[in-house]
Amino acid sequence: MKDVQGEKDSRKVPLKHVGIRELHWPLRLKDRDRGEQSTVGKLSLAVDLPHDARGTHMSRLVECLQDVEVISSQNIESILDGLKRRLGAERAMMDVEFPYFIYKKAPVSGLCAPLDIYCGYHAEKTGEYVLRLRVDTPIITLCPCSKEISCFGAHNQRATARIEVEAKGRVWFEEIAEIAAAGGSSQIYSLLKRPDEKAITEEAYENPRFVEDAVREIALRLERHPRVVWYRVEVDSLESIHNHNAFACVEKGWLT
Amino acid sequence: MKDVQGEKDSRKVPLKHVGIRELHWPLRLKDRDRGEQSTVGKLSLAVDLPHDARGTHMSRLVECLQDVEVISSQNIESILDGLKRRLGAERAMMDVEFPYFIYKKAPVSGLCAPLDIYCGYHAEKTGEYVLRLRVDTPIITLCPCSKEISCFGAHNQRATARIEVEAKGRVWFEEIAEIAAAGGSSQIYSLLKRPDEKAITEEAYENPRFVEDAVREIALRLERHPRVVWYRVEVDSLESIHNHNAFACVEKGWLT
Amino acid sequence: MKDVQGEKDSRKVPLKHVGIRELHWPLRLKDRDRGEQSTVGKLSLAVDLPHDARGTHMSRLVECLQDVEVISSQNIESILDGLKRRLGAERAMMDVEFPYFIYKKAPVSGLCAPLDIYCGYHAEKTGEYVLRLRVDTPIITLCPCSKEISCFGAHNQRATARIEVEAKGRVWFEEIAEIAAAGGSSQIYSLLKRPDEKAITEEAYENPRFVEDAVREIALRLERHPRVVWYRVEVDSLESIHNHNAFACVEKGWLT
Amino acid sequence: MKDVQGEKDSRKVPLKHVGIRELHWPLRLKDRDRGEQSTVGKLSLAVDLPHDARGTHMSRLVECLQDVEVISSQNIESILDGLKRRLGAERAMMDVEFPYFIYKKAPVSGLCAPLDIYCGYHAEKTGEYVLRLRVDTPIITLCPCSKEISCFGAHNQRATARIEVEAKGRVWFEEIAEIAAAGGSSQIYSLLKRPDEKAITEEAYENPRFVEDAVREIALRLERHPRVVWYRVEVDSLESIHNHNAFACVEKGWLT
Repeated sequence: MKDVQGEKDSRKVPLKHVGIRELHWPLRLKDRDRGEQSTVGKLSLAVDLPHDARGTHMSRLVECLQDVEVISSQNIESILDGLKRRLGAERAMMDVEFPYFIYKKAPVSGLCAPLDIYCGYHAEKTGEYVLRLRVDTPIITLCPCSKEISCFGAHNQRATARIEVEAKGRVWFEEIAEIAAAGGSSQIYSLLKRPDEKAITEEAYENPRFVEDAVREIALRLERHPRVVWYRVEVDSLESIHNHNAFACVEKGWLT
Repeated sequence: MKDVQGEKDSRKVPLKHVGIRELHWPLRLKDRDRGEQSTVGKLSLAVDLPHDARGTHMSRLVECLQDVEVISSQNIESILDGLKRRLGAERAMMDVEFPYFIYKKAPVSGLCAPLDIYCGYHAEKTGEYVLRLRVDTPIITLCPCSKEISCFGAHNQRATARIEVEAKGRVWFEEIAEIAAAGGSSQIYSLLKRPDEKAITEEAYENPRFVEDAVREIALRLERHPRVVWYRVEVDSLESIHNHNAFACVEKGWLT
Repeated sequence: MKDVQGEKDSRKVPLKHVGIRELHWPLRLKDRDRGEQSTVGKLSLAVDLPHDARGTHMSRLVECLQDVEVISSQNIESILDGLKRRLGAERAMMDVEFPYFIYKKAPVSGLCAPLDIYCGYHAEKTGEYVLRLRVDTPIITLCPCSKEISCFGAHNQRATARIEVEAKGRVWFEEIAEIAAAGGSSQIYSLLKRPDEKAITEEAYENPRFVEDAVREIALRLERHPRVVWYRVEVDSLESIHNHNAFACVEKGWLT
Repeated sequence: MKDVQGEKDSRKVPLKHVGIRELHWPLRLKDRDRGEQSTVGKLSLAVDLPHDARGTHMSRLVECLQDVEVISSQNIESILDGLKRRLGAERAMMDVEFPYFIYKKAPVSGLCAPLDIYCGYHAEKTGEYVLRLRVDTPIITLCPCSKEISCFGAHNQRATARIEVEAKGRVWFEEIAEIAAAGGSSQIYSLLKRPDEKAITEEAYENPRFVEDAVREIALRLERHPRVVWYRVEVDSLESIHNHNAFACVEKGWLT
């Protein structure tokens, strides 16, 4: 059977990435507090293509994935090495994202329930290997201006803190989610009883934060983290008085 | 050229709807306050298919749409009649949804800016003709429980009021959006200066509403509306203390 | 601490559904072929609210979910009974949807890989208990008209068959997905080698199906299924020659 | 009324972007063939924030937008200058995306209908001003491998070509969409009669293209374009035999 992908190409256009995307796949992940958790990932897998090859062999990308038992920051480099070897490539890329659950205790009642955060890995290897973790954590922002100028109350809302990091050594999703939570006016939980709701309402009111404040609080904590060598932080707030969002962002190196 | 769609079918399965979907199309609409506005719609168009016909002629659905100048609740029945005639059908269906802008003045500064609401028509005609309008309006809900039990503050958030109505006589999207806005703790605007923000923050705090309250307030207003003969109301609130939403709904006839 | 939700309401508007939505939760499900599988669900949980009660106690909806070990069509009624009891309601509703993996062998190579389908349950209980399963399965449709009128080739594309059923006795998601696959021109897999690709390409070309054909083939199989008592079928095809979709649908009782 | 945003900040964290996002707004755009067209945009607007300022004045971002009549590549720099001036910033950013309609004639019947493409501008100015246009155009890809190895037929599908460019001088969205269309196996239209469908089916079959081929064909055309100084091309194909996509990408400078 003819190998059309293997034909010579004379157009002299090498390609940066050739691969598959929107591949949904059952995943097992390392969990800091519970050993392991199961989830469903959305993956992209790609390799480069030299200028003189017509196409890549995409089914091999799926085959490489089938050999993986558990995905963690510890074995992604070896997945990329497998992609490079099996496809005869110089460069390999993997991006995977998935819902991930952290188990949080409500502040007063102590009731525990899973909260969904959205995590991912983006990894690329040519000679050099680069791995970025990302975590989207829901937080509360309460507007300092609204509090200051109003006789009572203050508008507040759900926001998302998106943090990306490069690290030397292991950094857990749970750690990043805790740093995100520290940046908000208060925290978000799946299960709250009335004494918890009172505590969170009051904490948020006493701790007003613009998106600018939240981003800075998170950036300062990432600057101090012993294993984080690069980061990017973005907070996106579903303003309750508008139908659009407020956002702010900063990345490592922006500070001087 | 052979007409495969026109072949006889022996499977004896008449079809309720056969047509096209996710067709994006430039639209002009009647606007209560400004005469007309332009937007972009997402449309579904369909007809029924008798058990003995293999397929419908889908390109004719697009051709019917090309004859339409301005879409309004006043000419949708004639669009459906055109579909039935051109496709030789007993039944025709059209669903269209689009962003629509209402121009709101901020409560203190009086500054005016467009606010995006999401509107649509769903129409179906066999012998009987039924037209439903729908409008998604952003509102604010401030939690009565959080206010009552907390020493200060109250959690609040953006919510969406989705209202569907059947009417005899014309009902404007703008009217429905005003009814939705009256159901919330306060209103949402695209442009607010500080005195406006103060007014809205305070209004929301003085006017706490659960999703249950918002739905009831809206339902009562629709019950009193002289031209609304059926409605369905749903309020979906992006709870600021949770990563999930609270919702409530009711429809005409549920009240006894 | 005051129970604001428990206050009397004088507006005389009973509500059909009050509850939570977009709650993401780790799930374990019964799997026909492998015993059990883990996934992540998106849930709505709701109860009714009598006209004289101001609000419901939403945290109890989450608490009810915490008691559930494995969700299957066999225990959903007892989850609804728990919601009714715990919230003192007449009516309870649960809707859950999730990616689910079926393990398919490629037609020639026999290589096995997981394919993502999208499944869900919708259940409601007042006096009567109604449970609907739904399954979205990707299939291929190859256009009979394009094949007939062209000298070579035929346009084809990915389509989704959405099937909803009510059953007496157990019906597996895997069964429904097999019925959907039988309705298309050929089947979809996650991992195919060249001999598989040849087989599928040729099968699709020899088996051209409009969305109308696919819906009818599926409906006939559901009519014959011994435990299916109601169904609705919709096929939505990502037409490769258009930027919109073709669709057809039919439901039980439409045939006479 | 106190200006909380104007407070001094001592955390020493300058921010790259502070602004608003998901702002929906009615837009008028320059159209190459018809003068002007109306659409609805989704916008982000942002400025930088010096380390010693607590917050930015977000309502001014909306006010700047209100002064704009028609958005085109010719006046975006002046919008950014307005943002910088009004917010006292060093850096300004605007991102806007919108559906845009091109009017295409079917290849045989000559019938003309609007086709939706998705376009955008991303602009940033500090000292330097950078403007990127982007256009997502739907195309058809027919698999060369499937054609070669099969006795008849070939799988094909809808794909999206996403092209980003920086240019000196004006480049129209229509031009970019034409370059994208030239990269596919054949073209996509909103309205086709049977003789058109035959022509497109046959053209696609005679012109098989992997995503790798499509990207290269587009890149070569952009290399030759007299006003394009930078580009990035990505083709994403909704494989009809899989439930995942195939993609390839390349950017200016990758070729050596």
